[in-house]
Amino acid sequence: MKESALCPRLAKSMDLIGKRWMGLILYQLLDGPQRFNEIESSMPISGRLLSERLKELEKEGLVERHVYTEVPVRVEYTLTEKGQGLKAAIDEIENWSKKWL
Amino acid sequence: MKESALCPRLAKSMDLIGKRWMGLILYQLLDGPQRFNEIESSMPISGRLLSERLKELEKEGLVERHVYTEVPVRVEYTLTEKGQGLKAAIDEIENWSKKWL
Repeated sequence: MKESALCPRLAKSMDLIGKRWMGLILYQLLDGPQRFNEIESSMPISGRLLSERLKELEKEGLVERHVYTEVPVRVEYTLTEKGQGLKAAIDEIENWSKKWL
Repeated sequence: MKESALCPRLAKSMDLIGKRWMGLILYQLLDGPQRFNEIESSMPISGRLLSERLKELEKEGLVERHVYTEVPVRVEYTLTEKGQGLKAAIDEIENWSKKWL
């Protein structure tokens, strides 16, 4: 039986991916670990908003933040397994966009 | 070469699917043509907002509105081919939500 549209998990996933810039940040990180300014320069997003979105993604367990104690210190963001799990959905959205938009 | 995250088409698709309730309305219509109140009763959305979202989906060519001149008149909403094209993406989001949330 198909879950009702009200299914909270589905609704939460749609909200998560759909939040402004969230999908594109995930898409960008599918390329591999990246530094803050690499992500920031890949889309017209403010540093403040990018920082906010990355914190949300960390809280949701989709992204990990690695601090390398080099000089200067290096910070990288990486998709977790849970984050990588969205690749199939993002790929399908990309396919659709290429076909229909 | 992977499209840059700034790819407008990908960004537009993410915005479209991610808009509050949009993904769930599409999900609901994957079940087949439905009347306004059927969609409305399947999720805690106001009639005004549902009407707004359906108009947007119509404008984007994802949904068609069919008026049957019966008494009383019957109005049904149906996914177009373009709308049906999002099934794969929505299925993947649903799979992810079942596995990870």
